[in-house]
Amino acid sequence: MTMLLLSSEEVNENAKMKDVIPAVEDAFAAYHQGTAQMPAKSYIELSQYNGDFRSMPAYLEADDWDAAGIKWVNVHPDNPEKHDFPTVMGTMIYSDPETALPLAIMDGTELTMKRTGAAAAVATDHLAVEGATTLGIIGAGIQSYSQVEAITKVRPIQEIVISDLDEERVENFVQHFGDRFEVREGTTSEAASCDVLSTVTPVRDPIVNRSDVGDQTHINAMGADAEGKQELADEILLEAKLVIDDHAQTTHSGEINVPYSEGTLTDEDIYGDLGEIVAGGKDGRTAADGITVFDSTGLAIQDVATAHVTYQAAHENGNGTEFDLLGQA
Amino acid sequence: MTMLLLSSEEVNENAKMKDVIPAVEDAFAAYHQGTAQMPAKSYIELSQYNGDFRSMPAYLEADDWDAAGIKWVNVHPDNPEKHDFPTVMGTMIYSDPETALPLAIMDGTELTMKRTGAAAAVATDHLAVEGATTLGIIGAGIQSYSQVEAITKVRPIQEIVISDLDEERVENFVQHFGDRFEVREGTTSEAASCDVLSTVTPVRDPIVNRSDVGDQTHINAMGADAEGKQELADEILLEAKLVIDDHAQTTHSGEINVPYSEGTLTDEDIYGDLGEIVAGGKDGRTAADGITVFDSTGLAIQDVATAHVTYQAAHENGNGTEFDLLGQA
Repeated sequence: MTMLLLSSEEVNENAKMKDVIPAVEDAFAAYHQGTAQMPAKSYIELSQYNGDFRSMPAYLEADDWDAAGIKWVNVHPDNPEKHDFPTVMGTMIYSDPETALPLAIMDGTELTMKRTGAAAAVATDHLAVEGATTLGIIGAGIQSYSQVEAITKVRPIQEIVISDLDEERVENFVQHFGDRFEVREGTTSEAASCDVLSTVTPVRDPIVNRSDVGDQTHINAMGADAEGKQELADEILLEAKLVIDDHAQTTHSGEINVPYSEGTLTDEDIYGDLGEIVAGGKDGRTAADGITVFDSTGLAIQDVATAHVTYQAAHENGNGTEFDLLGQA
Repeated sequence: MTMLLLSSEEVNENAKMKDVIPAVEDAFAAYHQGTAQMPAKSYIELSQYNGDFRSMPAYLEADDWDAAGIKWVNVHPDNPEKHDFPTVMGTMIYSDPETALPLAIMDGTELTMKRTGAAAAVATDHLAVEGATTLGIIGAGIQSYSQVEAITKVRPIQEIVISDLDEERVENFVQHFGDRFEVREGTTSEAASCDVLSTVTPVRDPIVNRSDVGDQTHINAMGADAEGKQELADEILLEAKLVIDDHAQTTHSGEINVPYSEGTLTDEDIYGDLGEIVAGGKDGRTAADGITVFDSTGLAIQDVATAHVTYQAAHENGNGTEFDLLGQA
């Protein structure tokens, strides 16, 4: 029995958003219903290299499939300048839960982008206005692409407003999506007044103010992934119907971590977690709702769900490289 | 930049005991000195498959090298009968701490055997009588082989007594080592009266009694790896100079877990951990010592140290298969 090796390119080809989104939706439901297991991330902090490693194991059981695996991922901010490597890299081991046989090793960097986009799409599907046609993106970095790929699968988006201070990144973005959508560069305010907004920046001080945001805009706050980071002004978070992916992670390092630690925002300001909404325990958007916010930190169950879909597709398509790691051939 | 894939056979060839033992010794010292990081193992329990997954991340900094990685390992006792797979399988991701680049993916099953043998050798080197020439092994399973390979590197062993109820396993063992040592089958008592004894069984009720053990025997208690397992009678543990690999793991699932949970054996009965002895903070065997026991549960730092040595050797020998997982070539 060999395992399948899937490179970043092969993950990209096989992790189709149309399949990843429902798998990630299943994962959120399983998490809420108690059929998922997700031990807390464990960290190895390497101050001497200004970096860290995180291990993210998970198992989940959906209605007609289950999946297990672990993503080993790092954050090394000096990598691009010092070593010409990305800040974040990841490696995923995807295993058969029944026998524990490692079925695949796949690039976890590409996987992370896919599952992050998919989470935004799931939240958008439950929280954005039904007929949303405009999408704002703040931050034209690498994560912005999967936001567009995913969100346009769940809403009839026609127009995209991209906002970034880096002109080259804006041009690349416009060039990439210009054929399929009406794409234009815009201010923060122009992006934030769209029907759906995704913020995908690493900022530590909020860049979106209440006055920028449309009255019924749904916001996917994707950028904050560490203590001290925040993209949206407190006012927005306090006014919005606020949905989180996971209480421990969002209060520790998500969009709400700063006002939560300061006591400005409390548990009473949190409407619920995405799993509750997906599983039907709580309503998504209702007619009465104005601004909605999804605070996404990224869960190990999303990785495992996406790895499942990717492996299935690669297996069916005959993609990937077979390797007999365990000598069980 | 590609990563190196190392199959079980390649791990076996490149993880030379003469290099693994000092690396594992360095790891124990680093752990004691606070230059290692080893977050608690996290478990995923799958009762529906009678199995579990464990993630074991670690980093360690020795005098002139450092290493990081994670082992993803399982225990699925029904595997051999139901699926013709081993009960325990493992996959190791070995990473460069400075950049977090995954340098290698290697079979973790073979790696586990090597690092487990090496830990017994490190303990034996510090705790057995200097001129030990006889080695007893109770349990002729797959782990017994690396016990012999490792321990015979640190003591001038000439005679080996192997004890197991399964005649076929005994014959295989004798055949394997008969050329290099004087090997004979013996009773538990005959094995346990040797200068060094390693117990490598999965028993839940002690099989070695006080009267079986020689007055200056050093025992490596390797078998217990779960709550309720125990190989040595309480009397032995209470009388011996008792050394453990890690307090949390040994009291939870090591050789001492049963008497410790019952209160028969307390912290006062534990002499120290192997790292303290290796680092020079406490004596190993002294002239006054009788029986010594090393309770080994297996630490993630041993895996990372062994992966380091294995990767270095494979890299130098041009072994393994290159694969561009991350598209960073």
